[in-house]
Amino acid sequence: MLTDHYELTMLQAALRSGAASRRAVFEVFARQLPGGRRYGVVAGIGRVLDAVEDFRFGDEELAFLRDNQVVDEPTLDFLAGYRFSGDLYGYREGECYFPGSPIVTVEGTFAEAVLLETVILSILNHDSAIATAAARMVRAAAGRPIIEMGSRRTHEMSAVAAARAAYLSGFSSTSNLMAGHLYGVPTAGTAAHAFTLLHDSERGAFQAQIASLGAGTTLLVDTYDVAEAVRTGVELAGPELGAVRLDSGDLCEIATEVREQLDALGAHKTRIIVTSDLDEYAIAALASAPVDGYGVGTSLVTGSGVPTAAMVYKLVAREDASGVLAPVAKRSVGKPSRGGRKCAFRRLDESGTADAELVVTSGREPSGARPLQVPLVRGGEVVGRESLEASRAWHREVLAELPAAAHHLSRGDAALPTVFD
Amino acid sequence: MLTDHYELTMLQAALRSGAASRRAVFEVFARQLPGGRRYGVVAGIGRVLDAVEDFRFGDEELAFLRDNQVVDEPTLDFLAGYRFSGDLYGYREGECYFPGSPIVTVEGTFAEAVLLETVILSILNHDSAIATAAARMVRAAAGRPIIEMGSRRTHEMSAVAAARAAYLSGFSSTSNLMAGHLYGVPTAGTAAHAFTLLHDSERGAFQAQIASLGAGTTLLVDTYDVAEAVRTGVELAGPELGAVRLDSGDLCEIATEVREQLDALGAHKTRIIVTSDLDEYAIAALASAPVDGYGVGTSLVTGSGVPTAAMVYKLVAREDASGVLAPVAKRSVGKPSRGGRKCAFRRLDESGTADAELVVTSGREPSGARPLQVPLVRGGEVVGRESLEASRAWHREVLAELPAAAHHLSRGDAALPTVFD
Repeated sequence: MLTDHYELTMLQAALRSGAASRRAVFEVFARQLPGGRRYGVVAGIGRVLDAVEDFRFGDEELAFLRDNQVVDEPTLDFLAGYRFSGDLYGYREGECYFPGSPIVTVEGTFAEAVLLETVILSILNHDSAIATAAARMVRAAAGRPIIEMGSRRTHEMSAVAAARAAYLSGFSSTSNLMAGHLYGVPTAGTAAHAFTLLHDSERGAFQAQIASLGAGTTLLVDTYDVAEAVRTGVELAGPELGAVRLDSGDLCEIATEVREQLDALGAHKTRIIVTSDLDEYAIAALASAPVDGYGVGTSLVTGSGVPTAAMVYKLVAREDASGVLAPVAKRSVGKPSRGGRKCAFRRLDESGTADAELVVTSGREPSGARPLQVPLVRGGEVVGRESLEASRAWHREVLAELPAAAHHLSRGDAALPTVFD
Repeated sequence: MLTDHYELTMLQAALRSGAASRRAVFEVFARQLPGGRRYGVVAGIGRVLDAVEDFRFGDEELAFLRDNQVVDEPTLDFLAGYRFSGDLYGYREGECYFPGSPIVTVEGTFAEAVLLETVILSILNHDSAIATAAARMVRAAAGRPIIEMGSRRTHEMSAVAAARAAYLSGFSSTSNLMAGHLYGVPTAGTAAHAFTLLHDSERGAFQAQIASLGAGTTLLVDTYDVAEAVRTGVELAGPELGAVRLDSGDLCEIATEVREQLDALGAHKTRIIVTSDLDEYAIAALASAPVDGYGVGTSLVTGSGVPTAAMVYKLVAREDASGVLAPVAKRSVGKPSRGGRKCAFRRLDESGTADAELVVTSGREPSGARPLQVPLVRGGEVVGRESLEASRAWHREVLAELPAAAHHLSRGDAALPTVFD
């Protein structure tokens, strides 16, 4: 029952008017890329497929709808037997998108397709916003690994989806165990300040940690005095000490000092991990610092200033009274939409660099352009499921195709123009 | 298993060092109010109590932890028998908080208390950010009702919690049916543009809607031409037409025109509901417009620029080697924390207006100040559950106590100074 009240009242009115059974085409797209992003990353397709497969109204939900007089009996009967039997097609998970890209298309009767609006948008708006921010951070990190550790800064279930989306975009691991369990995202983490404070001394805490987790563990060294903690850590673990984590202060300066100290102690292989309110700009600013990895929390799970992707779900065509599928579009001021079912292609120049997003309603197939849509659901059956690893690999390929301007961190226009035909 | 990897590795190391069984006191607090908010609203306490009650590791989760070698066998044994048996106390849901307010205190063994960090923070950081933004919108709306309709702009489960938090802060209803089902939040909604576009004409769509939902329904009138839609709506429903909804354009100007038109048509009681990317500033700007209600989506579920409340979970005291509960605090640069278990009071002046947040570790009880903490969990049993309606009423009372400066929408300092003793 992850749907809005008005989907059900629309359904009721359409069942009564007879229009509920008309064939309808809805499209998910974004009018713009909020926050001056240069591209968006499609994320959440796998979760959408799960949601469409599981979309049902159980006895408890139906009783709620009846008791609260949300809808009438014929509508409750329809909902009791609901199972999506239409088609979905759209962009692969990990693909990039631009303003107007038809990210997902839903075809079925109006009745069955309208009910999916809320849950499809929730998933894609959240996951794509996170994946888009994550992609910028991964680029800024220039090959250094990033651990996602923002679970505590967002809703407990968003956290799981955020960890999944971050991994899709190239993060190396997450602190979120549920994301490991549900989606196979590698998990990581060692200790917090509380662990040091729990013990009677920092030395006692480090001893306990190394005894239990081995010399390869990561010691958090900024609870009291960083230099002293690093000295103690290497003394206890030896030069095999895996890593030290810095979570406060001027990270660039402290990392440089700690690197010198570690090298002087012979711990050349001990890595330096930095955390503490990092975002893509802070990561970029640490490019020249002797840092081996980043931990990112708040800014990742909140989309680094853009917590939602601004995608909408719009009816673009429906059967008319004579049974013909006709394009439709509203005329609301400032919120234009284009009627008609769309095909999408990415145009590449001779060097293989993308130079336009082609969105076609005319039926003309452009030559030398890569089709962007794949079948996802056919007759109610999921046909487009991909592994998260496959989506992650696909994302890397797609990103490599974009022009250099796509990777600017500054606010600006979309990296590709969308050409409608 | 809504917990972070490092909670479990800390647990493993502490079980081995013997420190896991030390009595520990953790506190949830915010170092500052992000976004220049004047106060924060405590939200999610009811959900925290559910989470603490349900916090278990099932066979499937334990198998995942074993297979992925997250922790060792003694730790898995501990987790298999885990049940929180300690105490929680803190601010009531709906209470206001300020920098340093001890919002929730968790007491138990280190082992049992450390595991709750992630889920408690997730819930409070999300729900409080939303409730704080919602309270500003409710104030700006000055008595006009606000419908929460942002489900589609955030993770599907955050959406449910956001609807709950918005209602706590005074929103009148939500579009989210699950929030109605789970938390009793009143639900509302009628139709989208798709419903109008589905039919062969706007008139046909309105006829269908009125036939099914009655003349008291809300018609969405900006799909094509607003004036024509209003005329058609009143013609079909009569002056009993419940409301019209405007979702685009210059809402102030259009609402004025529509009000004149409705009055000229004799539909004096037909209300005007406006939606379209409203936030507290847009709502305030519509104060003089003839608007009867607002629908708020994106800005509510994203905390209107502040999607997370920046609360942390810190160890403030723990048993030392000699069995004495001793205060602890880290010294990390720029992230100060104060050791010791805290009591909190709101000081009121003679007129009953709040003038300070008192946070006391000395044991001195201030006179003439309202105690802010209540028991929530005792010996593992939930004792502090309140109905959402009771929390909502409490929020209104607390808000009435704050000084006028608390209600400025501009960025600024906290409305009350926090005085530590």
